[in-house]
Amino acid sequence: MRTLLRSSLLLLLAAGTLRSDEGMWTFDNVPLQKMKAAHGFAPDAAWLKKAQLATLRFPGGTGAFVSRDGLVITNHHVGRSAIAQVSSAQRDFIKDGFTAATRDQEIKVPGLELMMLVSSEDVTARVNGAVKPGMAEAAALKARQNALSELRKAEEARTGLTCEPVTLYQGGEYWIYRYKKFSDVRLAAAPEVQVASFGGDADNYTYPRWDLDFALFRVYENGKPYTPEAYLPFAAEGLKIGDLTLVTGHPGTTFRQQTYAQMRYARDLGIPYRLKSLERQKQALQAFAATSPEARRLAADPIYGIENGQKRLTGQLLGLQKDANLQKVLEAEKALKAAVAKDPHMKARAGGSWGAIEQAVARQTSLLKESSLLDARNSALLGHALTLVRLPQETAKPADQRLPEFAEGSLKATRARLTNPRPIEKPLDQARLAAGLQEALEELGAQHPFVKALLGGRAPEAVAREAVEGTRLHDLEARKALLEGGAAALAACKDPMIALARALEPFNRRVRQQVEREVASVFSEHGGRLAEARFKALGKTQYPDATFTLRLSYGPVATYPTGSGTKAQPFTTFLGLYDRHLGWGGNTVAAEGGAWTLPQRWLDRRSRIDLDQPFNFIYACDTVGGNSGSPVLNTRGEFVGINFDSVFEGQGGYYVYDPDTKRSVAVDVRGILESLRKVMDAGHLADELTAR
Amino acid sequence: MRTLLRSSLLLLLAAGTLRSDEGMWTFDNVPLQKMKAAHGFAPDAAWLKKAQLATLRFPGGTGAFVSRDGLVITNHHVGRSAIAQVSSAQRDFIKDGFTAATRDQEIKVPGLELMMLVSSEDVTARVNGAVKPGMAEAAALKARQNALSELRKAEEARTGLTCEPVTLYQGGEYWIYRYKKFSDVRLAAAPEVQVASFGGDADNYTYPRWDLDFALFRVYENGKPYTPEAYLPFAAEGLKIGDLTLVTGHPGTTFRQQTYAQMRYARDLGIPYRLKSLERQKQALQAFAATSPEARRLAADPIYGIENGQKRLTGQLLGLQKDANLQKVLEAEKALKAAVAKDPHMKARAGGSWGAIEQAVARQTSLLKESSLLDARNSALLGHALTLVRLPQETAKPADQRLPEFAEGSLKATRARLTNPRPIEKPLDQARLAAGLQEALEELGAQHPFVKALLGGRAPEAVAREAVEGTRLHDLEARKALLEGGAAALAACKDPMIALARALEPFNRRVRQQVEREVASVFSEHGGRLAEARFKALGKTQYPDATFTLRLSYGPVATYPTGSGTKAQPFTTFLGLYDRHLGWGGNTVAAEGGAWTLPQRWLDRRSRIDLDQPFNFIYACDTVGGNSGSPVLNTRGEFVGINFDSVFEGQGGYYVYDPDTKRSVAVDVRGILESLRKVMDAGHLADELTAR
Repeated sequence: MRTLLRSSLLLLLAAGTLRSDEGMWTFDNVPLQKMKAAHGFAPDAAWLKKAQLATLRFPGGTGAFVSRDGLVITNHHVGRSAIAQVSSAQRDFIKDGFTAATRDQEIKVPGLELMMLVSSEDVTARVNGAVKPGMAEAAALKARQNALSELRKAEEARTGLTCEPVTLYQGGEYWIYRYKKFSDVRLAAAPEVQVASFGGDADNYTYPRWDLDFALFRVYENGKPYTPEAYLPFAAEGLKIGDLTLVTGHPGTTFRQQTYAQMRYARDLGIPYRLKSLERQKQALQAFAATSPEARRLAADPIYGIENGQKRLTGQLLGLQKDANLQKVLEAEKALKAAVAKDPHMKARAGGSWGAIEQAVARQTSLLKESSLLDARNSALLGHALTLVRLPQETAKPADQRLPEFAEGSLKATRARLTNPRPIEKPLDQARLAAGLQEALEELGAQHPFVKALLGGRAPEAVAREAVEGTRLHDLEARKALLEGGAAALAACKDPMIALARALEPFNRRVRQQVEREVASVFSEHGGRLAEARFKALGKTQYPDATFTLRLSYGPVATYPTGSGTKAQPFTTFLGLYDRHLGWGGNTVAAEGGAWTLPQRWLDRRSRIDLDQPFNFIYACDTVGGNSGSPVLNTRGEFVGINFDSVFEGQGGYYVYDPDTKRSVAVDVRGILESLRKVMDAGHLADELTAR
Repeated sequence: MRTLLRSSLLLLLAAGTLRSDEGMWTFDNVPLQKMKAAHGFAPDAAWLKKAQLATLRFPGGTGAFVSRDGLVITNHHVGRSAIAQVSSAQRDFIKDGFTAATRDQEIKVPGLELMMLVSSEDVTARVNGAVKPGMAEAAALKARQNALSELRKAEEARTGLTCEPVTLYQGGEYWIYRYKKFSDVRLAAAPEVQVASFGGDADNYTYPRWDLDFALFRVYENGKPYTPEAYLPFAAEGLKIGDLTLVTGHPGTTFRQQTYAQMRYARDLGIPYRLKSLERQKQALQAFAATSPEARRLAADPIYGIENGQKRLTGQLLGLQKDANLQKVLEAEKALKAAVAKDPHMKARAGGSWGAIEQAVARQTSLLKESSLLDARNSALLGHALTLVRLPQETAKPADQRLPEFAEGSLKATRARLTNPRPIEKPLDQARLAAGLQEALEELGAQHPFVKALLGGRAPEAVAREAVEGTRLHDLEARKALLEGGAAALAACKDPMIALARALEPFNRRVRQQVEREVASVFSEHGGRLAEARFKALGKTQYPDATFTLRLSYGPVATYPTGSGTKAQPFTTFLGLYDRHLGWGGNTVAAEGGAWTLPQRWLDRRSRIDLDQPFNFIYACDTVGGNSGSPVLNTRGEFVGINFDSVFEGQGGYYVYDPDTKRSVAVDVRGILESLRKVMDAGHLADELTAR
């Protein structure tokens, strides 16, 4: 039955979801035949093992061993907080870059831990074996969780490695991944941030691009450079147009298993509403910024953050708006529906799931405004006040009945946020709060109970002014006093921001509960059933959703049609870096916040550089966030570049893989070497990276 | 009344159509106060007179005197047919470029005529004076036409100049423009086409751009270089970001006076339908191209043409799809409606015009498919056959009852097309005809009388094959024989393509007549009445629609948000030219038809070039097609660049001026000089251009 079901469904889906080069594959299930057929190459077991052992997991990203003596490469933006951590006011390595002239000068980053996947094991049978016949759904879930947890502990004890349970295919498979953890990681070299993220927020997600987005660390063990089991040597020869690339790394999250109804919602309502709200926030901040130079300074960062969000969402929307993309989702869904209809067990279990999700989407639609608006309205002060109001209430409850951020695992972080000493700028916070309240007033209307409770008929501007001017919550000590004083201190508190939070609290709680019960839990339950049906029908002919665990993608160096109406050049060169710099007026004009200015040594040493060397390139691998810092490999398993972004036109890839526009962006190995040798005084590191 | 009407309407429109820097202004009506207020500069009378006399009209474009000895600059693409005309198989100046080392070597282009606007005169009162009280509409029209025609003749006799009548504001004003005509025009220098249109069709309309799109001619009179009344000296100092520019030239056509209903039609039906049809044609040609190397060669040009059309229309659609743009049209329309409602005469005359146009749009909608499909289906052979079938019928009628292409003024050109010796490639023509018939079948259905008459139940492929294989019309002599043989020869003709044309003829005639009577004539009549109302209300606070006569636009060097999600760099440099060249693999790879390859001397002489020099730049002037070759001037009236394109994202400017995206693209004067001196062996011309 299953084989029959699978083959008919495969036929139906062949032209749909299983497009050439789509996929973030687990290492046990790389589609070797498909690769071989499409590209005349498939990695062998030794190739894969080497790539697996050389690839490292960074906090939030990826990296790789690239020398015999334990040099590790990742993106500058992945390593940035580590670089900042070892910087000081006197030695600002973010701004000025850093090169350790000798290994003695390499700087340890306390707390930075890298993970190498040593091995992994399919424990599905053992996990499912924990489920006894006749067990209820919840008991079975618990039994599986317990079994996984026990397995993890036993494996850690047995191997001495860090073991993590991994759920693939939403429960189709359970695995234990065993990691070796490296805790002595030292900074070896990094360029200036101005070159590492040349073009700043404006050029983020776009291409052509000129970002030297890499940094070098070195792993030590027992005080000595570590000799890795495997490393990826820098390729002697760079890529050409059409060359096949492979990329290893840890894609974080994708929404590709959402139903058509969910994606239509994202396209027609969810994303447009968020964009509208972001635009409104941006305009309010711009108005605030225009009031004084100091206001302009304060507003710059939040405005950049908003613009970044607008760009990412606009890119996703573009992908969803392309008819062919949602058509593909619809066709895959039809095929799966047909397959489910033929299988009595799956029909009983998942036949109604599309309908259930569609109903939840309808509920999500009716809750859209309230779920977006009954919150702390972008005010850090109101956010803190709300947490303070809730803390005594929530901590008095049993752990499993609390709001998630007050549950055992999260409470510490919640308290830490509250006592973060970073200063809160009252004028900025007031402007954001006023704009947020204005938005609620306009979107919900003056008669909405939430609006009445918060505004009481007054103008948003006045309410925000009164609460911000009167509050003491910007003062860390005041927050600590309330935190430590508990329920009694809070009850006695007359702070106007606390009063506003008290008014907000019940509305926010109600809408959060509604969304959780009527939307999120339905998506989770029925999304899981559909995943089960999909896995039953298609098994491992498909790749599992992204889980921030090791995956392999592949595809050639290739152009794509840009949103500006031309075709993207597969490579950029140092020539273009200086073209874009000068095209914006160089360092003297510093247009648009100086995004295209260059550090002085990049001007002084320009004549040393072979400007024809490639700098960045694009390639048709299937990556998302989490792949930052992923090594890009040639078919010989050599390092040819480091992934750092996906292009704007392909951001829809979070939802649907579009072979026309899904392109990843990498720094070319030749650009890294040229920079190390000619600008960064790091010829010795270049030599180490190219040694055989 | 008029003053009152105007002031209220101006208030209403202030935030709408009259946005900063919008407008293609006639030289008698440059908005000096507005310019001064916005930019702190307005040209004086001497500035304007010099710019007027230095600007020249080329066939289909613009150019300008740029030296004391009569050097004229225009775009390479404006001068291209002239350069081709003086080339030969041995001396291909298109491919290899050309530089006259001495004036003796400058090559005369027979037939090339340039026009300089010497003076112009408002003759509105005299033209309207020809209309006698009580005259019927048609008689009044005729009287005005006669008066203009008489004035033109009298002025030509009086002045010895070439005089042209010009109708501005759709009849709000009548002018006589007096031109001095130059008929001895010689080619002085031109770069290789590969540099002049670097990036080819792919980069057309897009930015950043690196096109050296200029050519130099010299005007002679009496065998000697002409000393122009005025010329635009090359600026010693180039532009910076934010600098104000002014551009003079001959914008050809705009659709900005269309009603909201017409633009909505273009957005929702007209342009999407054309795009769909072009995509279908492209796919058919691509399938044909895949059949053999020869087929690929034959299909390359038509495919490029189609892609160019797709890009232009997609850009226009983007502009129309931006809500703010059509909102502006709607608001201007509401304001004009309110103004018309207050004026009894205009109300009687134009009050119903919006409704009439909306009805005609409804008719246009119902005729969309037939008006697009009942034609020669992209077949040159069927097109010739249709002309041959019609010639005897049409020429037998009185001239004013014929189809337009057979009327007195057009008949010669129609016959010339029929006897054009350019070979017709049968396999290509057959592929296009088959695809066109297939489209008609699918869009109209098998039961449509047109489809029945043409296909008779057979497959489109078979009908096309039979007609193309059996026809003799690819043979120029066969066409000539039918042309000269007249009705008798035609009646006896058994050619299968003629038979197909006989079947097509009545359907094509019917739908053309329907469109003319029920759509086009209504647009013309009621569009004219609305223009009259607009002129009565707003007068010369607005600029007239484009008429391919001399205009002035102004705006600063400025970035814009690109369709790839970033901000465009205001300038490009030679560095970027080589970056894009190498980023596509240089001359060895020749990706995408070799669009980014460079002539050998541009590689050999690269080290001579100061690569930091600006190459192209963008500026916020209001230009459209016809402005090609327009000189870009700084406030001192010096030449700082030559306009050659508008960016993709601003193509909506044909319909609505959008200040966010309307950017023109020019070659920077510094790029021209650097190329002349360092690559083109034309230092003597650079010296002449920079002499004071």
